[in-house]
Amino acid sequence: MTDLFWPGDERAGSLMSDAALLEAMARVESVWLDALVDRALAPESARADLTGLVTAGDVEAIARDAESGGNPVIPLVTLLRSRAGGEAARWLHRGLTSQDVLDTALVLTLCDVLSRVLDELRSQVIALTILAERHVWTPMVGRTLTQHAVPTTFGTVVSTWLDGVIDAAELVVDARTLLPAQLGGAVGTLAATAELATLHGLADPDGVTAETALTAGRALGLRVHRPWHTARVPLTRAADALVTCTDAWGHVAGDVATLSRTEIGELAELSGGGRGGSSTMPHKQNPVLSVLVRRAALAAPGLGATMHTASATAGDQRPDGPWHAEWATLRTLGRRAVVAGSQTTELLQGLRVDTARMAATLEASAHDVLAERRGVADLLGDGHDSDPDPTTYTGMTGDIVAGAVERARTFLEENA
Amino acid sequence: MTDLFWPGDERAGSLMSDAALLEAMARVESVWLDALVDRALAPESARADLTGLVTAGDVEAIARDAESGGNPVIPLVTLLRSRAGGEAARWLHRGLTSQDVLDTALVLTLCDVLSRVLDELRSQVIALTILAERHVWTPMVGRTLTQHAVPTTFGTVVSTWLDGVIDAAELVVDARTLLPAQLGGAVGTLAATAELATLHGLADPDGVTAETALTAGRALGLRVHRPWHTARVPLTRAADALVTCTDAWGHVAGDVATLSRTEIGELAELSGGGRGGSSTMPHKQNPVLSVLVRRAALAAPGLGATMHTASATAGDQRPDGPWHAEWATLRTLGRRAVVAGSQTTELLQGLRVDTARMAATLEASAHDVLAERRGVADLLGDGHDSDPDPTTYTGMTGDIVAGAVERARTFLEENA
Amino acid sequence: MTDLFWPGDERAGSLMSDAALLEAMARVESVWLDALVDRALAPESARADLTGLVTAGDVEAIARDAESGGNPVIPLVTLLRSRAGGEAARWLHRGLTSQDVLDTALVLTLCDVLSRVLDELRSQVIALTILAERHVWTPMVGRTLTQHAVPTTFGTVVSTWLDGVIDAAELVVDARTLLPAQLGGAVGTLAATAELATLHGLADPDGVTAETALTAGRALGLRVHRPWHTARVPLTRAADALVTCTDAWGHVAGDVATLSRTEIGELAELSGGGRGGSSTMPHKQNPVLSVLVRRAALAAPGLGATMHTASATAGDQRPDGPWHAEWATLRTLGRRAVVAGSQTTELLQGLRVDTARMAATLEASAHDVLAERRGVADLLGDGHDSDPDPTTYTGMTGDIVAGAVERARTFLEENA
Amino acid sequence: MTDLFWPGDERAGSLMSDAALLEAMARVESVWLDALVDRALAPESARADLTGLVTAGDVEAIARDAESGGNPVIPLVTLLRSRAGGEAARWLHRGLTSQDVLDTALVLTLCDVLSRVLDELRSQVIALTILAERHVWTPMVGRTLTQHAVPTTFGTVVSTWLDGVIDAAELVVDARTLLPAQLGGAVGTLAATAELATLHGLADPDGVTAETALTAGRALGLRVHRPWHTARVPLTRAADALVTCTDAWGHVAGDVATLSRTEIGELAELSGGGRGGSSTMPHKQNPVLSVLVRRAALAAPGLGATMHTASATAGDQRPDGPWHAEWATLRTLGRRAVVAGSQTTELLQGLRVDTARMAATLEASAHDVLAERRGVADLLGDGHDSDPDPTTYTGMTGDIVAGAVERARTFLEENA
Repeated sequence: MTDLFWPGDERAGSLMSDAALLEAMARVESVWLDALVDRALAPESARADLTGLVTAGDVEAIARDAESGGNPVIPLVTLLRSRAGGEAARWLHRGLTSQDVLDTALVLTLCDVLSRVLDELRSQVIALTILAERHVWTPMVGRTLTQHAVPTTFGTVVSTWLDGVIDAAELVVDARTLLPAQLGGAVGTLAATAELATLHGLADPDGVTAETALTAGRALGLRVHRPWHTARVPLTRAADALVTCTDAWGHVAGDVATLSRTEIGELAELSGGGRGGSSTMPHKQNPVLSVLVRRAALAAPGLGATMHTASATAGDQRPDGPWHAEWATLRTLGRRAVVAGSQTTELLQGLRVDTARMAATLEASAHDVLAERRGVADLLGDGHDSDPDPTTYTGMTGDIVAGAVERARTFLEENA
Repeated sequence: MTDLFWPGDERAGSLMSDAALLEAMARVESVWLDALVDRALAPESARADLTGLVTAGDVEAIARDAESGGNPVIPLVTLLRSRAGGEAARWLHRGLTSQDVLDTALVLTLCDVLSRVLDELRSQVIALTILAERHVWTPMVGRTLTQHAVPTTFGTVVSTWLDGVIDAAELVVDARTLLPAQLGGAVGTLAATAELATLHGLADPDGVTAETALTAGRALGLRVHRPWHTARVPLTRAADALVTCTDAWGHVAGDVATLSRTEIGELAELSGGGRGGSSTMPHKQNPVLSVLVRRAALAAPGLGATMHTASATAGDQRPDGPWHAEWATLRTLGRRAVVAGSQTTELLQGLRVDTARMAATLEASAHDVLAERRGVADLLGDGHDSDPDPTTYTGMTGDIVAGAVERARTFLEENA
Repeated sequence: MTDLFWPGDERAGSLMSDAALLEAMARVESVWLDALVDRALAPESARADLTGLVTAGDVEAIARDAESGGNPVIPLVTLLRSRAGGEAARWLHRGLTSQDVLDTALVLTLCDVLSRVLDELRSQVIALTILAERHVWTPMVGRTLTQHAVPTTFGTVVSTWLDGVIDAAELVVDARTLLPAQLGGAVGTLAATAELATLHGLADPDGVTAETALTAGRALGLRVHRPWHTARVPLTRAADALVTCTDAWGHVAGDVATLSRTEIGELAELSGGGRGGSSTMPHKQNPVLSVLVRRAALAAPGLGATMHTASATAGDQRPDGPWHAEWATLRTLGRRAVVAGSQTTELLQGLRVDTARMAATLEASAHDVLAERRGVADLLGDGHDSDPDPTTYTGMTGDIVAGAVERARTFLEENA
Repeated sequence: MTDLFWPGDERAGSLMSDAALLEAMARVESVWLDALVDRALAPESARADLTGLVTAGDVEAIARDAESGGNPVIPLVTLLRSRAGGEAARWLHRGLTSQDVLDTALVLTLCDVLSRVLDELRSQVIALTILAERHVWTPMVGRTLTQHAVPTTFGTVVSTWLDGVIDAAELVVDARTLLPAQLGGAVGTLAATAELATLHGLADPDGVTAETALTAGRALGLRVHRPWHTARVPLTRAADALVTCTDAWGHVAGDVATLSRTEIGELAELSGGGRGGSSTMPHKQNPVLSVLVRRAALAAPGLGATMHTASATAGDQRPDGPWHAEWATLRTLGRRAVVAGSQTTELLQGLRVDTARMAATLEASAHDVLAERRGVADLLGDGHDSDPDPTTYTGMTGDIVAGAVERARTFLEENA
């Protein structure tokens, strides 16, 4: 996929693409049909691999026909029935409702997004660990409210980035783990499935129904919880985790953009291959990855808010609009997170650190940025250095970097 | 275009599609080159129709190459140069910057969206006028905070919808009228163009430069204002107008959805052709257009907020991320507005009004909903009707509907 | 009022304070009672000045009792009745509904906010005009995507700020002009008022009712339109105008903050009186007004989005939650806009421009920032200056500044 | 506190009030001074209980003076110094920066909010468990997209509410547990504290510094992590948890509002004491708690988005605006969550369930809502009941309710 309006979109490949959703929906139908047969609710003759019955070429027709009923499951089922024929046609989708298929497919594609985001986060943790350790004692000026404040080290700055990235990663891990299949039937009671069990004369129809859902969930690699047709926390939790990722990346990108300013020049993105060039100014070397990551960070919170508004207004046993607002919102958020994550990884792996410039800037502000230190010395009645060395006023830098790196190691081990 | 995640998306056709943006960008480059030649800043031999040099087939390559510089103009210019050859290749894009081309192309495609939205708004005003006049005296119960309150008429309800729609339409008209071309050069001074005029030895280089911009703007059918690289009101005003449209449509759709509830049944969407059907419940007739319109109304405010955040953080002479966040946000907002507008038109044109059910519901609540009237009578010491007729307690209904219809007529005349 | 969580809040004085809302609500009730008497719908003996019957001391009790019915009008009416006594007690609030009183009071207090914001905008336009004219030829480097690009002048930068501020001001003027009174009765038909006219045996009860609303609206200084209980464009339009203001101010403040960076130092806020100081670093001079204005600009879009969500979900003849969400949202947005507007005015009036530093920075980048100029010369086969002067490559600066200043003059004349 | 614009605000008492923030800030200063003395970094003579030195009466002056430096800590420190006198005056705030004090105080007051919210959530879980068990077999019609679909039970509906509430509660528990103290000094290196240790000639200055932070954090009951001046996940995680709460409550309130509609009447809020009354329509019984809770749910997502925007744009070693935007946003979100939580608890504890009406509505739709069942029977070639009983088509209701109740019990045990 490409998107002229969102340069870099192809980094997300086919994640949450139309074709990916279609494939996931077909997989849900197929797995459910299997489960019906496995639990003796449908005859063996109904077994069929439905996933092979649709292809990306079907997207257009299904999308067009989706409007009539408000979702793409209805035309998908029609298409699957016409292609499967026979007993499979009669039995597929029995017990399910459109929302089951769409929500579960959404969860499957979202799971792929979260996994890919987690890959990027791991790569970033590694890149940041290297930077933090390398620059643990690289002095630079600390800036607050845009002004030189007191000295710090680049390692300390990187440690803060690292904590933000791991904080976000922990939310992604939780969100992915908790993603459930949606298997509830028309209003969340699985009544049709239970009815099948009853009509088949099976002992313990409820037990058989529960087993059917578990079987399907297991085949999809998803948790099976109670139906959550109108309790949308699984999706808002994932959305919040993704927005927290773009926050963390936006934080890094904003610092890189600032420190890359012509007048500051302490950091630079890796150039080459035309990266960062201008259409009319050949001398320019724009921090283009930072710019594109910041873009995503500015656009994500509004998408997260929409997911919450949808959750807060979900009503009845299937919402009349809020549910429909979630799909594309989540897709946009998911793909953009992958793109921004990939760009952040590349940014960090190629980051050029001008330690000499950092040192020179600090030295030029040496008197000012040691004002706090003089205040402390005054407090104890000590004299001041006549020739102050700002690089020695960096406090707990060593411990801070060591602590952050230790946390990074633990995170990487636990999420290998 | 189709979008499995946003059923109905094809209603927006190619509006603000990748291909439409590419075509608009090529048009901007072409018109500017023409203007350079027209004002004797470029040689006659440089004249070329650049729009024919790119096609939808180029979208993918340009989109892919757009990431490197952060926007699609850089690869577009490269491509145009390679295909135009000769003097055109040397002269095209001279005086412009990427932001000029992208912003102006965005404005052109947005203009098409606003025009299409205005078409829908006009159709809605007509449909609503018909409904308001037909049902000026159709009594129904008025509801506040979900409870029966006092009587009203369906014509009064429709008048409120109508006012909301015209209020929104007036904002769309303003926003479209005020959309300016962006023609400023690298930092908004048009320095390269003025330099060309100077080097050519033209008298009044500034005047020639201004004329060049005016010529180009006129050819594009756009207002020419000063460069607005970081003053983004033209775009937020358009975005706010679009969100106000989805608000107005969401208001209508919400009322239709409520009044279509099985227990209320006073309104229904036109069915037929599978519209509103269910995958498992053949008796259902869902208000699917209302549902899809509500979806858009819930998702739009977050997009509008992003446009404002981008505007508020636009810095320097070209923003480092906020600008890039606008493009896709505006595209999504624009296309969804067209889809929702089209669905609202269809909804209103096919709306089925069950006046008998309205009357019956009102009659059943007659005693309660006349409590206010009794209070007024008590105040004057009058007795009460023993057999109250709630249909006679509808106040200014006649004037309200007449006023709304009069406003609609004026609007339609002024925006024919 | 003070607010420890929003430093500077006292700049908004009592605008949209609890006391201001209470006073406005009492004024609406009083004006309506007058209108009833004036149109002979209530007896002369019912005339009373209700505004004197409540004071700021009543806020607490009314606020506490407001929860029971969901809005403060119910306890206010009870209180007014108990204090007014006699015929006034019997007649006050007749024909109105809670939403009429609250919405109209909200509009009145919002009108005060918009007027105050407009005062600030006018002062800013004056300050910006002075800056633009003074610095029309003050050369500085233009920056795009954080990097030095080509030369510009500070006057050109200020002109862009000025256009943004006037664009916002025009929206504020429109929004204020269009603010309507809300006078519709229980469900927007003014039925109780019309009933009064009928029972009084007045000829043309509808005409009398319309006259009553007009009389009240005129006394309040507000437009009288049809009831708009669920068509909320008057409020979203005002909210969008306010957010557009904070965008424009955030744009200015962001540029000031950037150009105040220690490494750049081209601009500085006026210091003195402790402004911009630090708790531990005596050398620091933080751009604190810019910081506080940016704060408002970042927080406003979310509030604007909430107003739209409320508008989009307004249903029935009075919304079940969306209406209630608007009040505090609008108050917060209104007060913060006033505070940020006042801070921006102060910022602009005291802005220190270091023209020497601007010149030095530009000179240091002279070769790079003239790359575009060399490209143009190459195109014509001209040689390059051996000793380039970047201050002569500023294009249309003169026209741009003159145009912006002209627009400012027109705006100030039309909005004196 | 009362708030005329947000009825019910007094339910939040003094949580996150100006006075509470002031008290918390003084507590942070006091605890830190203690820690300095405890670790022998300040003399025993400097020990003082600073919390007693300021009262609510100081709020106004501090708020007013807060604007000058952009935050209230600077005037607070001045005030504390003037009142403490002696060695305490000299030593207090040494090693800290404004952001440490404000962030930690914010965290402390937020912690109180989260605890109170958790109290409400526990009460809701209890109320919901009772409802779910009581109504496990109470049949009602299930509704999808506003239309009658198939039968369900009220216990199943309540189970979905319950899952949403517990999902939200788990996020609150996590967010509260992870709230860290902010103790980093001017740029997050704790340099001044380490300098004190060095100047005092203490062995292992870094160790002493770390111990000082730990001592202070322990005294505050907060986790001590590395400084997180610009890594704002602790706050966005808490904000997301609060928004997820208002989502869950909005979901419940929306269902109650719908099911309380005059035409549906299956649920009603407890009335009495004027609750739910109207200013002009004595017969009305509005679902006012639901309305007020929905209000909060609609307004919360925009506030959550602002917290994320602030996090995403946090830069340098202290952000120039994003930080300042967080305080009031978090306060508003926190207080509103407490109010909405308390209202939801009251709503659930007093909910009136009209089981007869539920049964009657279901019975009236019996034929339609059993269409799915007939489809299943057809599939197996079975005949249909001539006299269908919709109450027997409720699928897994028993298991669903039992599972939800079991989860509730576990939650209550683990969060007693």
